[in-house]
Amino acid sequence: MDLLSIKDPSFLKKLSINELEKLSAEVRQFLIEKLSETGGHIGPNLGVVELTIALHKVFDSPKDKFIWDVGHQSYVHKILTGRANEFDTLRQYKGLSGFPKRDESIHDVWETGHSSTSLSAAMGMVIARDLKKTKDHVIPIIGDGALTGGMALEALNHIGHEQKDIIVVLNDNEMSIAPNVGALHNVLGRLRTAGKYQWAKDELEYLLKKIPAVGGKLASTAERVKDSLKYLLVSGVFFEEMGFTYLGPVDGHNYDALFENLQYAKKTSGPVLLHVITKKGKGYKPAETDTIGTWHGTGPYKIETGDFVKPKAIGPAWSKVVSETVRKLARVDDRIVAITPAMPVGSKLEAFAEEFPDRMFDVGIAEQHATTMAAGLATQNMKPFLAIYSTFLQRSYDQVVHDICRQNLNVFIGIDRAGLVGADGETHQGVFDIAFLRHIPKMVLMMAKDENEGQHLVNTALKYNDGPIALRYARGNGIGVKMDEELKEIPIGSWEVLREGSHAVILTFGTTIEMAMEAADQLAVQGKSIRVVNARFIKPLDVDMLHHIFAEGIPILTIEEAVLQGGFGSSILEFAQENNYLNTPISRIGIPDEFIEHGSVTKLLEEIGMTTENVVTQLKAMMPGKEKKVLRS
Amino acid sequence: MDLLSIKDPSFLKKLSINELEKLSAEVRQFLIEKLSETGGHIGPNLGVVELTIALHKVFDSPKDKFIWDVGHQSYVHKILTGRANEFDTLRQYKGLSGFPKRDESIHDVWETGHSSTSLSAAMGMVIARDLKKTKDHVIPIIGDGALTGGMALEALNHIGHEQKDIIVVLNDNEMSIAPNVGALHNVLGRLRTAGKYQWAKDELEYLLKKIPAVGGKLASTAERVKDSLKYLLVSGVFFEEMGFTYLGPVDGHNYDALFENLQYAKKTSGPVLLHVITKKGKGYKPAETDTIGTWHGTGPYKIETGDFVKPKAIGPAWSKVVSETVRKLARVDDRIVAITPAMPVGSKLEAFAEEFPDRMFDVGIAEQHATTMAAGLATQNMKPFLAIYSTFLQRSYDQVVHDICRQNLNVFIGIDRAGLVGADGETHQGVFDIAFLRHIPKMVLMMAKDENEGQHLVNTALKYNDGPIALRYARGNGIGVKMDEELKEIPIGSWEVLREGSHAVILTFGTTIEMAMEAADQLAVQGKSIRVVNARFIKPLDVDMLHHIFAEGIPILTIEEAVLQGGFGSSILEFAQENNYLNTPISRIGIPDEFIEHGSVTKLLEEIGMTTENVVTQLKAMMPGKEKKVLRS
Repeated sequence: MDLLSIKDPSFLKKLSINELEKLSAEVRQFLIEKLSETGGHIGPNLGVVELTIALHKVFDSPKDKFIWDVGHQSYVHKILTGRANEFDTLRQYKGLSGFPKRDESIHDVWETGHSSTSLSAAMGMVIARDLKKTKDHVIPIIGDGALTGGMALEALNHIGHEQKDIIVVLNDNEMSIAPNVGALHNVLGRLRTAGKYQWAKDELEYLLKKIPAVGGKLASTAERVKDSLKYLLVSGVFFEEMGFTYLGPVDGHNYDALFENLQYAKKTSGPVLLHVITKKGKGYKPAETDTIGTWHGTGPYKIETGDFVKPKAIGPAWSKVVSETVRKLARVDDRIVAITPAMPVGSKLEAFAEEFPDRMFDVGIAEQHATTMAAGLATQNMKPFLAIYSTFLQRSYDQVVHDICRQNLNVFIGIDRAGLVGADGETHQGVFDIAFLRHIPKMVLMMAKDENEGQHLVNTALKYNDGPIALRYARGNGIGVKMDEELKEIPIGSWEVLREGSHAVILTFGTTIEMAMEAADQLAVQGKSIRVVNARFIKPLDVDMLHHIFAEGIPILTIEEAVLQGGFGSSILEFAQENNYLNTPISRIGIPDEFIEHGSVTKLLEEIGMTTENVVTQLKAMMPGKEKKVLRS
Repeated sequence: MDLLSIKDPSFLKKLSINELEKLSAEVRQFLIEKLSETGGHIGPNLGVVELTIALHKVFDSPKDKFIWDVGHQSYVHKILTGRANEFDTLRQYKGLSGFPKRDESIHDVWETGHSSTSLSAAMGMVIARDLKKTKDHVIPIIGDGALTGGMALEALNHIGHEQKDIIVVLNDNEMSIAPNVGALHNVLGRLRTAGKYQWAKDELEYLLKKIPAVGGKLASTAERVKDSLKYLLVSGVFFEEMGFTYLGPVDGHNYDALFENLQYAKKTSGPVLLHVITKKGKGYKPAETDTIGTWHGTGPYKIETGDFVKPKAIGPAWSKVVSETVRKLARVDDRIVAITPAMPVGSKLEAFAEEFPDRMFDVGIAEQHATTMAAGLATQNMKPFLAIYSTFLQRSYDQVVHDICRQNLNVFIGIDRAGLVGADGETHQGVFDIAFLRHIPKMVLMMAKDENEGQHLVNTALKYNDGPIALRYARGNGIGVKMDEELKEIPIGSWEVLREGSHAVILTFGTTIEMAMEAADQLAVQGKSIRVVNARFIKPLDVDMLHHIFAEGIPILTIEEAVLQGGFGSSILEFAQENNYLNTPISRIGIPDEFIEHGSVTKLLEEIGMTTENVVTQLKAMMPGKEKKVLRS
């Protein structure tokens, strides 16, 4: 059928299983083709084709509510709810989002991006439904990886306690973003192979029937034993203990099995956990055979070969610069341990893991545990390197405050994907970290001008012994500078003048240095000399340099790819106020007080006025005109 | 024995059980007497007297490491490690902390205050130990309440996976701060009564022996059945599933049982979970019979009667003002639902729970779930009231950003215990919330000048339909003003001039208004008229009023009982910069860039210069002298 003609999922009701299977193939073909052009989360979506179709056939969206945990697996749902014709714009500026969005469709009832929120959101909807006394189904669909997130476990606990009607679909694809980790994974592993336990159960029932006393004076025991039989069937025991009716495991690519179990779940009172086994990347060989998560989310690729169409990068990936420097240092300092919450590939820690298997810990999607475990290591004079994306570090804000900073422990936090990340959009922009870290006592926060300085700052961080220290680095690649052989230590709180100038000063760091330098070039032509300072320490500030700048009284422009409220620029305002520097014009460029949607980073920067042109305009507005200049000199 | 003479726990090694029991009684008597004077966490500490003594007898601290989750139950540990003579200063300024503190003793290896961190910290220490190849025991002691916190579950999952040697002591006192909630609680409930399952198990084993085929061709089945027997013994199955060796449940007040199990745990490889049943408040009748948590943490009390020596309060408790106003509004708006993460008593929500049992949800210690569940409710046009302490809201920073604010949902967050909290100290001061909430788009943040305005702001919040809105309120009581009968709505972003004046303006809110008014009084005598503004909206600012103030060009002083970095005062600096108000002197009073220890709030404010005197000094420094004044007029 023509997927582009789909308006809503009602057409599914009439389709036979044969027709559904044909539809599945078409959806897969559509995804493989479209995503080869735009990139996107191909693996997760190919895995849930049948599951999504089955859910929409058995239930009635939007009356019944599907809550897609993480949300990157919602493409099939988007196709079935009338958005196939927007896939050419997937993850592009003003185009189709890669995640559920409430303003895209009435079928998107909850927005996601970060993992493990679906059960809590669903519980809120269930409570609302029961108070309103309406009858609809609330169905969170959560992966086995997301289930290890603390908040999902908190929700599981509460849902089991409340015993309200809710159908949790556990989409078990044996792999979260990286191969999954944890005891829960072992439990799920046993469930997956539960088939062999069935036999033991049958045998035991047979034996019990043979026991003559059953039905006689031992009846109560027999009842008890029968009750306990479910524990013999190992499958489900974990969830049954939590208060759920456990169904499954079900083959997530078999419509008969899916329909049977979904119908049963629909009729069951209280919380149900339906355990569905799916195969990530199903139907596209390169993605299906992926074992480490390369095909989780990708850029464009060649369909025939599965080769990625890589954008040309001059420098090495930032994650790689950092993790490889950590690895280098780990060879001479055996106190260095690396920790990642389920991002060994994204954080480029595979080589570290191979070289130091005992000193690398992938704790699964568990940012809070990762952060406090790092603090625990640091109390024992170890040197933990915690690699975590800026947006996910939000999950462990309290652990950074309460466990790391308050105890002033030597934890090195690698804040990956800091700044705008582009296609993943609102939920993934790494723009809050300066504002949420800068006000925490003891914290040192850095960002490098290029990958060479990046390696020196990693070295600085791991040599630092006075407490917590964090390095922000961007998604994407360095700029291709020569790397020094020998690692240096950069004095804490020291900035660097990249370009001299006397008419105005730009204070900036990291990715925005480029636009500062370009603006300075442009203004040089117009006879204005602009100083550009690499403010590589966001905290502490280089107070000596600042005192000099304010003594000169020249205008100051700060630029940061982060929220302006409470950000780096604000710390300059605070410095000026605390030191009574009243008359120096200060201007700040950064991200305004709104959530920034998806789109290319360049496009987004343009949209919010973070461009060379605007830097030039702002500088010109601050610099005194000719008369004034004469007056001053 | 003389508890004051204890230097370290080594003396325990020689004591007989009889002597230990005598010691227990003495420790209890000591705690009951000392805490009747100072206040403190009497209930939790009376519950762990034998457990703590047994741990110190069986293990060797500080080589072996005890990690007290939450930490308010560490008083017995403090007595045994040489700190009995400091109990007169408990929780007072420069006195003994109510929580473990690394600079108090080498026996305090981890600092706490917030719950559920112990397992992650312990895992970090275990990894460090194994890498260093030393042999010591790491023993986190965690309550059944703290175990429901997401990060503890994340850690449990990781510990079960890694299979390293660790002894988790589950201190199950059937009550966290409030009666515990959740499915995990049900599991623990079954474990507590596990005795009766033993019988079923014995019967089944007997039956199995009778089956003739066992040992013959069905041998493998029988083996399988025997393996599965542990599942019949319901006790422990949850933890066994997670990969732990489960021991218990053990009577936590019986030395024989404790020693036997601790010794066994000591010899067992891999992760062990020792389930100890204790009675909170054991040995002091009023605390022992407490069922709702009144005796969890208290002020001074009369030993004989158990009556609390309440400080005289003029106004009602802030928590009560807020929760009672919510209750009043809930009578006319059935969309209002209250949510608390384990703090129904502290947040004074008992009356709400009684009147609206279906609309009140205590989710246990699970701030993340509570926050996102509130968001889920709001998507369904409900009006959730999320009552949460400022310091604990740190746990759900990401949920506030990602789930509530990003989706612009109508959640009303009651930020209880905002500002300095006093005796609980560093880990509990509610001083970061402005800095971590102000930079989140869509957030409205308020604080009232008194309890009458407080009720109106609650009304304002629950009538607000444009997104998230939060009200900060202090620990302690209102100031005793008359309460209006009718609730009003205060326009969003509107400030109020409390006192007219033309020489300077103070912008402040909540608890610090008092010192502003006093300072204005003092300066009035000296011929200076100071305007005092109730800046009840911390975000959004009253921009109209600000433009007027800056147009007047009079000095501005901001005062906030919160961190200065990125705080309210900084938002005034940002406003001035954005609007090019260059020449107005601005000064900010607030909490400096350091963690604030325990002590009375008055003492702490004095220590950091938040006093009427300093307000006067700061104002004087900013106001022009006579000459200048003449010049200007």
